[in-house]
Order: sequence, then C-alpha cells, then structure tokens
Amino acid sequence: MLSEIIQRHRTTLETAVAANRTRQFFAHWPEPPSGKIYGESANADGEAAFKRYLNSQFTELLQRGNIGWLGEEASPYGFALGVTYPEIAIDKLVDNATHAQAAWCSLSPVERVSVLIEALERASKRFFEIGYATMHTTGQGFVMAFQSSGPHGFDRALEAAAMGYTAQADLSPDVMWTKPIGKLDVSIEKRYRILPKGINLVIGCSTFPVWNSVPGIFAGLVTGNAVIVKPHPGAVFPIAIVVAEIQHTLQDLGLDPHTVQLAVDTIESPITLQLVRHPAVRIIDYTGGPVFGGIVEQEAAGGGKTVFTEMAGVNCVIVDSAKDIDKAMENLAFSLSLYGGQMCTAPQNVFVVKDNGMLGDIAIKLREKIDALVGNERLGPGTVGAIHSKATLQRVEEAFALDLDVVRASAKVAHPGFEDAQSVSPLVLKVPLDREDIYTREWFGPISFVIETPTFADALERVARIVRENGSLTTLVYTTDEEKMKAAEDAIVAAGSPIAFNFDSFVWVNQSAAFSDFHGTGANPAGSATFADLSYVVNRFNVIGVRKQG
Amino acid sequence: MLSEIIQRHRTTLETAVAANRTRQFFAHWPEPPSGKIYGESANADGEAAFKRYLNSQFTELLQRGNIGWLGEEASPYGFALGVTYPEIAIDKLVDNATHAQAAWCSLSPVERVSVLIEALERASKRFFEIGYATMHTTGQGFVMAFQSSGPHGFDRALEAAAMGYTAQADLSPDVMWTKPIGKLDVSIEKRYRILPKGINLVIGCSTFPVWNSVPGIFAGLVTGNAVIVKPHPGAVFPIAIVVAEIQHTLQDLGLDPHTVQLAVDTIESPITLQLVRHPAVRIIDYTGGPVFGGIVEQEAAGGGKTVFTEMAGVNCVIVDSAKDIDKAMENLAFSLSLYGGQMCTAPQNVFVVKDNGMLGDIAIKLREKIDALVGNERLGPGTVGAIHSKATLQRVEEAFALDLDVVRASAKVAHPGFEDAQSVSPLVLKVPLDREDIYTREWFGPISFVIETPTFADALERVARIVRENGSLTTLVYTTDEEKMKAAEDAIVAAGSPIAFNFDSFVWVNQSAAFSDFHGTGANPAGSATFADLSYVVNRFNVIGVRKQG
Repeated sequence: MLSEIIQRHRTTLETAVAANRTRQFFAHWPEPPSGKIYGESANADGEAAFKRYLNSQFTELLQRGNIGWLGEEASPYGFALGVTYPEIAIDKLVDNATHAQAAWCSLSPVERVSVLIEALERASKRFFEIGYATMHTTGQGFVMAFQSSGPHGFDRALEAAAMGYTAQADLSPDVMWTKPIGKLDVSIEKRYRILPKGINLVIGCSTFPVWNSVPGIFAGLVTGNAVIVKPHPGAVFPIAIVVAEIQHTLQDLGLDPHTVQLAVDTIESPITLQLVRHPAVRIIDYTGGPVFGGIVEQEAAGGGKTVFTEMAGVNCVIVDSAKDIDKAMENLAFSLSLYGGQMCTAPQNVFVVKDNGMLGDIAIKLREKIDALVGNERLGPGTVGAIHSKATLQRVEEAFALDLDVVRASAKVAHPGFEDAQSVSPLVLKVPLDREDIYTREWFGPISFVIETPTFADALERVARIVRENGSLTTLVYTTDEEKMKAAEDAIVAAGSPIAFNFDSFVWVNQSAAFSDFHGTGANPAGSATFADLSYVVNRFNVIGVRKQG
Repeated sequence: MLSEIIQRHRTTLETAVAANRTRQFFAHWPEPPSGKIYGESANADGEAAFKRYLNSQFTELLQRGNIGWLGEEASPYGFALGVTYPEIAIDKLVDNATHAQAAWCSLSPVERVSVLIEALERASKRFFEIGYATMHTTGQGFVMAFQSSGPHGFDRALEAAAMGYTAQADLSPDVMWTKPIGKLDVSIEKRYRILPKGINLVIGCSTFPVWNSVPGIFAGLVTGNAVIVKPHPGAVFPIAIVVAEIQHTLQDLGLDPHTVQLAVDTIESPITLQLVRHPAVRIIDYTGGPVFGGIVEQEAAGGGKTVFTEMAGVNCVIVDSAKDIDKAMENLAFSLSLYGGQMCTAPQNVFVVKDNGMLGDIAIKLREKIDALVGNERLGPGTVGAIHSKATLQRVEEAFALDLDVVRASAKVAHPGFEDAQSVSPLVLKVPLDREDIYTREWFGPISFVIETPTFADALERVARIVRENGSLTTLVYTTDEEKMKAAEDAIVAAGSPIAFNFDSFVWVNQSAAFSDFHGTGANPAGSATFADLSYVVNRFNVIGVRKQG
C-alpha cells in the first residue's frame, strides 16, 4: 500500500525538494479561493460544512482516552462557535504518542514523507471549510484565512516535510564498508538508523493556527517523531480539521492515528506547561507571545529539550527615497492594514529620513493610502479583518492615550452581515526620535509609528539595534541609493533580520513565500525557528550507526 | 588566488562530500607512519623538529597581543617539555576574532572550504612532528599518536569541513523569483546570506588534543565563524602546530590569520569559563570530563549559546556467543588495552551471559589475550602507551582496593628509553551483578569489569539502561543468534548508542572511521556532538534572506 502512495506523490516530492534548493517560485496548491480551481460549489459547501459544526462536538478525531468535551472559541466577527473537542489526560496523550512513535519511526523517510503528502492532499479538499474556521477563530478576512490556512500554510507544511526528507535521504541508509589493509581487506556491514528525539509538542497561537503550526507538525512527523498539537484555546477548529485528516490518512494506510494528536485546553485550565515539562516531550515548537515563550524556552533549556520559537518582534521600515513614492506608500499601507497588524511580520516603526528633500510629507501620504484602502467598501473590511483579542483593542486605546501627534486615527470598520465584529482600522502616531521607550516595545495590533530621523545612517543604526535587542521578523527599506542599499543590507543581515528593498507591487514585506523565503532567521530575539531550513529539521532526530562483522 | 586554491582541491572536496553521503571507505591521508609513503626521513625529521621546540618558545603563531609566555606540559613518558606559548588577554582574542570573522564570512562556502583543505594539506607535511608532540603530551604510543592526530584526525577535519560545505552549498545563493499572478507576473531578486553564529570556542582535552578538536575547529570555520581554540594545558603542542599552519595558510592567501587563534592557559589560572561566558562567544565545542562539561552546558544554556559536547560514558560489551571466541576475545583484549583505556570509546563493562554453555570461562580467556598482547615486547608497550594523568593511576589503585575478584592485575609496563614512563597494563575485575554502584560509574583508564548475567535479555536491559542514564559512546555485542542481534540492535539504538556486532579482526569498537562512522550520537548523556552529521554543522550559522524589487 505504501509503495503506491510513494509512487502517487513522487513528482510532488521531487518538485518540492528541488524548490527548497533552487528557491524558485513554486506553489503546490493554487492561492485564489476560486470556484474555477476548487469547484463551483466549493465555497458554499465549505461554509455549510463549517456551520454544521457550530454548537456541536467535533467527532472526527481518532484518539483514545476521551474523558469529556471542551471548547470556548468565539468569532471575532461576533458570535460564539460552540464547537467542543475531546478532553484527554496528558499521560494518556503521551502514552498514545510513545506507542505510535515506535512504529512510525520504523518507516523509511520516503514512506513517511509520502504518507504526509497524501494527508495534505486529502485535507486540501477542505480548504474552504478550514478557511471559514480560520476566519471565525482568528478574525482574518476570508480570502486571507483561505490562503494562510489553506494553500500558503500547506505549502509551508510540504516545504518542511520535503526539507526533512532531504536531510534524511541525503545519507545512505546502509553500506558495505571495505577497508584495504595491505594485501588484505576488512568488510563491515553498516546501517544508519534515524532515531527521533520526540515526542514533538507543537504549541499554536490564536492568529495563525494552521500556517504557524503545520511547519512544526510536518517537520516533526517526517523525522519520525510522534506529534502532540496544543492549539490556542481560541483557535482550535481549523487545526483540528487538519489533525483529523492526518489521523484518518494514517488509519486508512494501516498506521497508528495517534502518531499525531490534538490536545485541547481552556484559558482557565491550561495544560501547556505540563506538556512542556513532561519528560517524554523532547522537542517543542512554540508560536506566540514572547513572555510565555520565554518561560517555555527556560523550561526547555532546563530539560535539555530542543525548542523552536516564533515569537514576536519590532519590525521596522526605513523610508529614504523611492522611484515612485505613491506606489511605495500604497504597498506599505497595505502591509500596515492587512489583518489589523496582527501578523508577527507586520511593520510597526516607519523611520522617515529627513535629509532627503524629495519625499514631501510621508506621514500624510501614508494616511491617504490607508484611508483609500480601508475606505474601499469592496476590499477594505476583508483586508483589515477583525481583531482577535480584546487585549489588542485595549492596546489601540492605550497607544492613542499616549498623547502623541496623530497621523491617522483608528476607527470602527463595518463588516456587513457581522454587526458585532470587533474590527478597527490602523492607528498611526508620530513619535519623537528620543522616545525609544515607546517604539522599541512591540505594540501588537493595528498600531504603527512614524519617526523622523536626521539621516539614513541614524535610521539604520537604530533599526539594527532594535533587531539585535528587541528582535525582528522583517525589515523593509525604501531607497534608490545603491550605496545605502549595500550599507543597509550588511548592517541588517549582520544584526540577524531578513531585509526587503523597495516593495511597491504585488509582494508585501509581511508575506513570505514557501520554498523561497525563509520565515524567521533564528538569529535575533524574535525566535529560534526558521521555516524551513536544515536546522529546522535536523535537530529533530539523531543518526545511530550499526556495525556488523560477518 | 582563491580560484586557484578552489581548483587545486576540487577533487578532494568532491570525494569527501560523496563519502559523507555514501559512507563508503575513504581516507584522504594514508594511516601507516611509513617512510615509503611519507618519505624515508619523515620520521627522523619529525622527531628532530619536535625536539628542537623542547625548552623553548613556540614562535609560529600569528596572533596580536602577546603579553607573556605560558606552558607546563610534561610527557607521560617521563620528562617536562618546557615549551611555552603566547599569553593573550581574552578581550584581545575576542577583538581579533570579531574583526577577522567579518571578512571570513564574506567568502563563499567553496572559497572557505578550499582554504581549509589547503591548510590541512600544508599541516599534513608535519604529521610525524605532530605525532611526537601528541605522544609526549597525551601518552599515546607513537603509532597511535601519529594516526589519531595525523591521518585519522585530519580525515575527521576534512569530513566536518565537507559536511559544512554541503549544508551551505545545497542552498542556492541567489535566485530571480518570478510569481505568475493572473496575466501579470512579479519578479523579486533574492539572495540568501550565511550569517555565522560565532565566535566559536573549541575546548580541547588532554588525551586527544587534535582528533577531538579539529572537527569543531573545521566545522566552525567552514560555516563562517572565527574560532578560538582553548587546548587542555597539558596537551597544547600538537594542536598549536595545526593552528599555526592554518594561520600561515590564511596569511599567505591574503586573509586574516586571526580567523583562528590559540588561547593557552594553565591549570592554576584557567581561562575556559571566562571564554565560555564571554557574550561574543556563541558556539562552544567541548571535549572532556562530564563534571566540567555539565558546567559548560549550563553556562551555554543560560546564555542561549549553541554547545556541542563529547564527554564520557560507560561503554558496555555483551558476550553471548561467537563463531570464534578466541578471535573475539583477542579483539576485545586489544580494545581494553589500547592507550590504557583512555579513550572515551573504550569498553568498561563486559557482561557475560551465563545461560550459554558454549563459552567456557570468558574471564580466563580475556586475561590470556591481554597477557599475550601486553607481554609482546614488540607490540605491547606501544599499544598500551602511557597514562596521561596521575588521577588515572590513582583510579587504578582505587579500583584494586574495592576488594573484588581479580581477573587480571595491573602492572607496570616498561618503555625502553623512557625509564620514568607512567604506564600500567589493564586491571580487570569481576563484579557481582548487584553491584551497580560500581559498574554504572565511569572508571576512566585501564580498568574494566567482567559481570556475569543470567540471560541475554537481562544483560541487554542493563546495558540499555546504562546508555540512557550514564551515557555511552560505544556498545559491542557478541552473539551468533540472529534474534538476539535484532533485539539488541533495536534496544540499544532506541537507547541512543551506536552498536557493533562480533568484531573479531582489524576493526575495534573504540575506533570510528571518518566519513563512515558517526562519532557520538547526541542521543544520550555522553554528549551532544556527532562527528560529523548535518546537525554538527547547520547549528553554526543562520541563513538570512535579502529581497529586492527592481
């Protein structure tokens, strides 16, 4: 049965492996949520499937040990979901995983990766349902929810699986080693066995429950580990569908569905730290805030565990000069507005270089571009989406109360059909250069700052320092000056952040493309994970040699 | 100039890269210390060169900031070396390294690896001198000293350099990424820059100053890091020659010799922890005892540093059955005698399965084989070598004082020409099965235990537990029973130790072959380093993306 699965997905695997090397454009699943691609009824069917689960039990998971039902998700568009998930004791989850891992790691790397691609293909049939589940847990607009938890997220999963396969398959699994010794020689039969470090715990976040979790899930699985997925209690539904589809794929192929399990908890009775501390848990993927992330890192270090974090940072932009400043500011306005700044990659600080007289008033231009986008009835609300958490809404008020010059005030955004949606447009404030106390903090949400600096060099020095001390996932620079580009590239790369130049159409700094852009560098305080380089996969297993003299 | 160096070593690089993948036999430098290979006068010239440095300053290093001369090496063969090395302040070393790293990491991976191969080729001209320097610091017999610090060690260095090159070169350094968007498309020029995590500190040990240090040095260098080598104060000379040769190669190629530096200290005024704690040091390679290793690991974890350890463990043998028990015990006797058990890979506990009646008295046979080897005037002393440290000699007495049944008593071994050599033959004791308090401890040196167990399953359970709890670098099993082999392989691999079966000629469990056998698994308490898998190299750098819209 597995040989048929290997054959079925051979081309996908080879294409993904090659894309990981060449970094050329590759997308296995098309990104438009279009009926022409996914079937004319796909949208309506997906929405109906999503609605059928409201106020009921999610019964698809194949997990032993259910002792109750839990669930407390609420749509940021203004209604409670009422979906509940099985509650399973931690020791039971770990027992299930330990048992499953012993069998799973005895498969060959190509068998594992092919089973995982099969699971992705099956789950991809539910992109629209996953999209609605994502929209109504995270607050993302539907198109973004479809893409981030569907094609974009799945491409990241495939990328991680392919990278993990490459790291194992580049090593011969066995060899007859023959050493010449003078006129004699000696032969030893050798094998190299992959030993997973697992169990691999994947801790999800409330804003990107699929996109930020599937890389760890698939990197963990492809390298032979059993995986336990602990989603944020506010965003379980979309990843529950993905986990269930993997489990059913495993079961249908005669494998143990407990190779991947979902561990659901509530805000009031969290189980994350118990899972982190469990001695059988050896690898931890964490996406979320830096405060709790710091605790997870400390616990992991104390237990000698491998940990991959993707937390948050302070992302900066430098505006020095541009070929077409209107297109540049349109691009930046979109990045500031998209999903209300609730992306870990969204810009926060816009440093405007004063010594360049050509630019006019960047702050005014930026406000105009945001106004035009947010005010566009067709595109505005879907771009901005809704705010996941009340704490983020409060943060907008806190920022407004700083009593700074207001470049653009935040206001409620109406979402027709969702009268209770908690949605607000970007707040942009002008911050004096000497108020580092304000702009070196992360203000997660639709909050950004315009900061005038005297020179490009001054801006660059500040941004590099923020990357080093506060962490960044992105840096964006607008300049037409080749020497400034060179200086910025060297300084920002040395500080440990990726850098983008002069984005002004169809590509945004807060979006990274699977198979081409690494997400996270691991080189600054924003996190240790990189989706998906070799370090993201090779630290999940060891290679153990077996030698036999005949 | 570098293009010529790349061309010169292209075949060596390609062969090493391929061997790392196929794991087939490959040795770039021939292992026999033979005049036919290395030149008729090579031995005499090497010994003379070694002797010229006695009681004088080692003036070959190209390092700024010398504030004095240090050195306290003594030959275990009975004389003080009197060689002194430059003393340089830690901040100066770090400044030198920081400056050098900025230039070194701007080279391409193929440039770096080719420069490093050039350095190895140059240093290999001094194999005999390095061999004598190793013999008279570690106590290894000359042939072993020549091989471990010469061809075998250099092959490990080449292996690590090639693996590091592979990990970088498998990724395209740049791409023109073009995404089709409906009828349009968008192009982004992308580059992927290697950012070293360094400075890379390599902490050496007293018994294998070259073999155990060059993998870290070359893995660190090839991935763009500047390296500071801190040898054990008792074994500086051999690695000082290697560092000097790398420095001169760098200088001759117009590069900064401070890319690698030697940091020498004394037992009385150690500098290791200061280096470990220095904030600019980001990667640490450590070989040595587990007590100090634990401190290094803790300091590193606290500082968020990458650490690779190779400490020690309790290596076990199970004797169940053998095709030819005499050949088997000859093989084991050699492993127990070689360099007086001062290899981290040397066996300590020999579990003998009682329920197999075929074996006769293994303990007697083992004693006879050791006696025959040690008593062989031509081969015995060179095999046993000398004991590096007084603490190891005392440990032999401590073991003898346990008042256990003596299988074989330890005795002084004479080394003609070195009347004051501290050299003793293996002590073998019989330990009751219930004295785990004795045999689960590491007894570093020429000390081993024979332990009778009722069944193979009992032995296997004990050995797996020792691997998990105490750590092991090797496990050796003698059995002719296929089912027992299968059970042993699964249990020992799952516990995290490599396993060898039925070694009875020309290959010994305490020797691992570069390019084929991984040294260390990283999967048990004996250490986190594996010479040289992908994890050994990819954790030394990050990849940072640069994106430009035209």
